[in-house]
Amino acid sequence: MNASATSDLPIGVFDSGVGGLTVLHAIREALSNEDLVYLGDTARLPYGTKSPASICRYASQATARLQEQGVKLLVVACNTASAVALDTLRRQMDPVPVVGVVEPGAAAAVERHPGGKHLVLATEATVILGAYRAAISGRDPEADVRELACELLVSLAEEGWTSGAIAEGIVSRYLEPLAEMAFEPDNVILGCTHFPLLRNAIERVVPDGTSIVDSASTTAAVAGHLLAERGLLNEQTSAGQLRLLATDGATRFARVGGQFLGDHLEATDIELVDL
Amino acid sequence: MNASATSDLPIGVFDSGVGGLTVLHAIREALSNEDLVYLGDTARLPYGTKSPASICRYASQATARLQEQGVKLLVVACNTASAVALDTLRRQMDPVPVVGVVEPGAAAAVERHPGGKHLVLATEATVILGAYRAAISGRDPEADVRELACELLVSLAEEGWTSGAIAEGIVSRYLEPLAEMAFEPDNVILGCTHFPLLRNAIERVVPDGTSIVDSASTTAAVAGHLLAERGLLNEQTSAGQLRLLATDGATRFARVGGQFLGDHLEATDIELVDL
Repeated sequence: MNASATSDLPIGVFDSGVGGLTVLHAIREALSNEDLVYLGDTARLPYGTKSPASICRYASQATARLQEQGVKLLVVACNTASAVALDTLRRQMDPVPVVGVVEPGAAAAVERHPGGKHLVLATEATVILGAYRAAISGRDPEADVRELACELLVSLAEEGWTSGAIAEGIVSRYLEPLAEMAFEPDNVILGCTHFPLLRNAIERVVPDGTSIVDSASTTAAVAGHLLAERGLLNEQTSAGQLRLLATDGATRFARVGGQFLGDHLEATDIELVDL
Repeated sequence: MNASATSDLPIGVFDSGVGGLTVLHAIREALSNEDLVYLGDTARLPYGTKSPASICRYASQATARLQEQGVKLLVVACNTASAVALDTLRRQMDPVPVVGVVEPGAAAAVERHPGGKHLVLATEATVILGAYRAAISGRDPEADVRELACELLVSLAEEGWTSGAIAEGIVSRYLEPLAEMAFEPDNVILGCTHFPLLRNAIERVVPDGTSIVDSASTTAAVAGHLLAERGLLNEQTSAGQLRLLATDGATRFARVGGQFLGDHLEATDIELVDL
């Protein structure tokens, strides 16, 4: 099935949970003709605290599920899986292309501010993996990269408290050490799929003129380029169909995921699958 | 080994992660002569999003590990496991007694305010299970029980931001619906092992005179009574020894767990075990 990828196949999007729905949302905005199938491995989240071997195994099982039904592109909308399992998944999906969320964000940051100062906001697991630092420094050795673990922003996004005094207070507190170090970033990179929901709160806290690199929209742009290059864009204007698969917890997926997708979801919109 | 429980055996404490260290801390305060062995199943947390069958299996495996080395009492310092797996674990440990965290908190709340209004602050998973509501209503059919899911308080405690404007702002926001419903609780029950760390912030937000029921200290008290009843208190005044076992992530366990235990921990203080 891999070899016969055609333009009418859906794009597959995989994440450990609901966070990747911000990436799905960005893809829908950018590529409204595309059919999409999303798989959230909610039974086994969070991936960030698992060993690399477990992450590769889980990601590979999820990928196999999407591969089975046929996709023309796989988007790995999970920072941990992008950092740890991308090579494994590329071998598995070959010749179907695989896009992670780290590289597009890093590339966009370097393009906007070559030799610049980059602040990556991410989860503790992503910071420990150092994937953004490696991806940015690999493209631009002059770049000055700082990474900040902002765990509370994940819960804040899931709770839907994305604006107002609490959200801005938490963002400010995370940024305090930068002011002490006199580090003024050119770019702030949203290095967790949950953080695009907090973009407005973050923009209100960082100094005017700081650019925000959102790895959801940069990943959607890369997916679009890649499909265009290979002649795989869907030219049919039948509205893009969306299937949502999860490995557990349809009710919570619908409630929290609806905010991430920017759309109302019911538990019955989610198909539960075993991996 | 179960049948030969003697006073010099340690008390076993089991949790899905580090939260149960608040219970361990309370037991150390109340029973300073006792040796303690703690097992945090950090590789498989959170339990709250897992199916009841999986929770029972995980809890049973963790319990077997503590059983193997010999304990005179098992404390299940995890609300989810207490709500779902207590009967399974009691059968497994029999005749060694097993104490969960839900019953002691519910009993203390009813004792303080018979026929009273009880507000349970917990995780979403505990609220969905309704274990505190059932335990309180089972003891006192006149009781008026409300449960509030406060997910962000978990991350707040793990981040160590336990006092100040952000903590109080978040607690206040969670309590807003109560004011709208004109529900004035007699008791606020800390129905998550993380929440004793936020006790001061919670006390500053709730009306004066509201009593706080901390399931960590109520569980420690019940453990003490139970050992005394069975003549199993350790009378030796050699300081209580503490062993900490975890299934993953010794570094994070030490950093976050140290705050919960109220003691400095190094990663080398944690023994990693496979279940």
